[in-house]
Amino acid sequence: MKLNNVMLITGATSGIGKALADHYYKKNYKLILVGGTKEKVDILKKKFKKNILAIHADLTKPSDIKKIVRESINKFKKIDFLIANAGLYEPDKILSGNPDRWDRVISVNVTSVFRLVNLVLPHMKKNKFGDIAITSSISGHQAIHWEPIYSASKHAIQSFAHGLRTQVAKNNIRVISIAPGMVMTELWDIDPIKNKKYIDTMIKKGNALDVKEVVACFDFAFSRGRGANIRDLVILPTNQNL
Amino acid sequence: MKLNNVMLITGATSGIGKALADHYYKKNYKLILVGGTKEKVDILKKKFKKNILAIHADLTKPSDIKKIVRESINKFKKIDFLIANAGLYEPDKILSGNPDRWDRVISVNVTSVFRLVNLVLPHMKKNKFGDIAITSSISGHQAIHWEPIYSASKHAIQSFAHGLRTQVAKNNIRVISIAPGMVMTELWDIDPIKNKKYIDTMIKKGNALDVKEVVACFDFAFSRGRGANIRDLVILPTNQNL
Amino acid sequence: MKLNNVMLITGATSGIGKALADHYYKKNYKLILVGGTKEKVDILKKKFKKNILAIHADLTKPSDIKKIVRESINKFKKIDFLIANAGLYEPDKILSGNPDRWDRVISVNVTSVFRLVNLVLPHMKKNKFGDIAITSSISGHQAIHWEPIYSASKHAIQSFAHGLRTQVAKNNIRVISIAPGMVMTELWDIDPIKNKKYIDTMIKKGNALDVKEVVACFDFAFSRGRGANIRDLVILPTNQNL
Amino acid sequence: MKLNNVMLITGATSGIGKALADHYYKKNYKLILVGGTKEKVDILKKKFKKNILAIHADLTKPSDIKKIVRESINKFKKIDFLIANAGLYEPDKILSGNPDRWDRVISVNVTSVFRLVNLVLPHMKKNKFGDIAITSSISGHQAIHWEPIYSASKHAIQSFAHGLRTQVAKNNIRVISIAPGMVMTELWDIDPIKNKKYIDTMIKKGNALDVKEVVACFDFAFSRGRGANIRDLVILPTNQNL
Repeated sequence: MKLNNVMLITGATSGIGKALADHYYKKNYKLILVGGTKEKVDILKKKFKKNILAIHADLTKPSDIKKIVRESINKFKKIDFLIANAGLYEPDKILSGNPDRWDRVISVNVTSVFRLVNLVLPHMKKNKFGDIAITSSISGHQAIHWEPIYSASKHAIQSFAHGLRTQVAKNNIRVISIAPGMVMTELWDIDPIKNKKYIDTMIKKGNALDVKEVVACFDFAFSRGRGANIRDLVILPTNQNL
Repeated sequence: MKLNNVMLITGATSGIGKALADHYYKKNYKLILVGGTKEKVDILKKKFKKNILAIHADLTKPSDIKKIVRESINKFKKIDFLIANAGLYEPDKILSGNPDRWDRVISVNVTSVFRLVNLVLPHMKKNKFGDIAITSSISGHQAIHWEPIYSASKHAIQSFAHGLRTQVAKNNIRVISIAPGMVMTELWDIDPIKNKKYIDTMIKKGNALDVKEVVACFDFAFSRGRGANIRDLVILPTNQNL
Repeated sequence: MKLNNVMLITGATSGIGKALADHYYKKNYKLILVGGTKEKVDILKKKFKKNILAIHADLTKPSDIKKIVRESINKFKKIDFLIANAGLYEPDKILSGNPDRWDRVISVNVTSVFRLVNLVLPHMKKNKFGDIAITSSISGHQAIHWEPIYSASKHAIQSFAHGLRTQVAKNNIRVISIAPGMVMTELWDIDPIKNKKYIDTMIKKGNALDVKEVVACFDFAFSRGRGANIRDLVILPTNQNL
Repeated sequence: MKLNNVMLITGATSGIGKALADHYYKKNYKLILVGGTKEKVDILKKKFKKNILAIHADLTKPSDIKKIVRESINKFKKIDFLIANAGLYEPDKILSGNPDRWDRVISVNVTSVFRLVNLVLPHMKKNKFGDIAITSSISGHQAIHWEPIYSASKHAIQSFAHGLRTQVAKNNIRVISIAPGMVMTELWDIDPIKNKKYIDTMIKKGNALDVKEVVACFDFAFSRGRGANIRDLVILPTNQNL
């Protein structure tokens, strides 16, 4: 049996997070799956039968983040892999957009990650093992002017990941940033079932990433020997000009 | 008389902001000076006699940001120069630090800037003139591992500034990022009066920046012809190894 | 049989290049292996028995680069995978170092890559297939002051790779940059046989990368579906503070 | 009399370099002006009457670079300010472009700077004073896909400048990088006399920089107190979207 196999995934009810959940469930990981929509979390509970803790939580609330870690440790005693994957997309113009929404973007994409990592780290340190992976974005590597808030959030998390990595490496904790380009998921208000044909065409043309390719990136990073840390991985659709 | 001379400065009660206030007061600008400590704002009110609006505000509160812009427009009808200067420093370890404080750092250094810019932009657009300058940091250009939260906040604001610039250039609005290295101010819990001798020695040795040099950077950027935008300026103490 | 299997590797006689050659030889690729030391190229010729073209070439000479491509096409009719891997390391002080050596570093690490890519591209375009992978370095992502020439060369190649990718994507040609941190190879004047024990200790401690991990990165990137392009992959020894 | 006033400028016969020469001649600096076209160097000799050393040199030739420094020291005994300004522009497609020209671009924009700095540094060190300023480009801060060779050269020089700065700061030598966006000069094959009207319109519209703005940036950087080093300054035409 694999020794280190408890994985916490935020944003697990859709997009990349959902695909990660499917992937690691098949590999018999013990999963803590966090989602912001109760109905979708309930679906996860029905879908996955064993070794699962599905949590409905609002990542903008510190008390909910505490609940996630508390319940995770209660059930599985430890967290080996943390995938800070939940994220909101935001293409607003600064002149005409909605700052309340921007607060939520920064809260989910940035400060909830700070908070979650802060609470998970002591358990990883005690256990002398941990992998923290972050779903970043090409927008964290290059400022993109049509999504300045989203880009700001992803630049923040990139910088955080690099600093964090240096701080925790000595505890056998790795910090991994996976930065995909365009993936056609619910993040862009695209329903993967209804729009399957369109998405498949976009993928085939190299205009959008198959979400499986992004899952493969996480899997590749986790699979490295403990002495090797994938610090950054940027994966784009072949035809995305960034 | 200079036509465009209404300047709003946040974080105006100490450090770089205070030095900017002194400088532009002497140049007869109409100043809106924002500070988070009531006693210090009161000192500003006594110190500056004319063409001044000193506002005590908590930048983590959206309603206070609205108040700042509303009162500014009430008094001066427009805002020509916005210096988003207020900032909190944060050298916490992620394992042992205080996430509530990190929320405040991100709120003051990042989301309050989004919000303030969003409210000021319509007035600049209407007036067909505006300069938005941001006090960034070397930590926004290079991830610094001993200050991962601060660095994240400054990377966010750098990326925001670049995107914003592209969005508003057509309205004769420039966006300027001034990124200093070590300046010995209250930001690092250094009292500029009590520690004057120590600070002067550090400046002389090239280990810390004279705050006047940072003011000169803002002044230089504002003084360019309207067709030229200082996108980024990074100024370091000569001996700072970054 | 795999359709696309002709691979050209520069710097194939040692370090990462040698490990790549071993790996893809076992996978039955047709290999063009380029090295700068005749004796080492001769060893490759003896070691690999089939489907091999081993070329002794000086990458600082344009005529030698032409020879590489000409002989490759003569023998295998096409080049599917180009790994621009050859590189010189250079930790010189600018005040006291040797500019003639710096010219060689830039020539091997940068301009020879430009030239080789320019000559290989028409064949990839004609064949409507190609993967160009570059051995970059963490020093291409972050300026490292104790190796300013090396860092300059790697920043150059990073920027080149990104621009090139955008230019050739429409021809089903992907451009991949793999940026490792410390790998203990001949690049740092370390003999992998004599110093095996020391290297193994360094790897175990997370202070140096096992070269196999770097090979795995290339393999992972090549294995993605054609619609997904690993733009950048940064892999560090877990304890390297960068 | 100003103590430190010997300035060496490469690329001094046109564009930014010419404007710098004009500016500092008026300020009574002792100038070493280097150009690659003999006729243009001869014009400089006639134009400037006193305290001038105009040198015709090919920066791709190491012997010419040695000559520049030797003659400079012979005449003026020291070099206080070095402006590595000469540069070639290159918007080639990698598939169809000319690698011989790319070699020249890298030689002039990158390796000649390494070499020149290496030869000038001992004199600055001995004199315990020096400012090295580099004409970089926005293309050194952001990879621009329609000019991959130029962008590579400017990324290289950015990384070099940062490393160099750290190496020489202790000798009271500052390293400054000035990165302009679009300036309409001979670099883009634009004749500033013949096309004056067009250039002026472009400047007025914020689509191109007035070369005087770029000169002002150098001047601003040199004018800082010795404890302050403008590490980077990026100046763009207000409407350039980068």
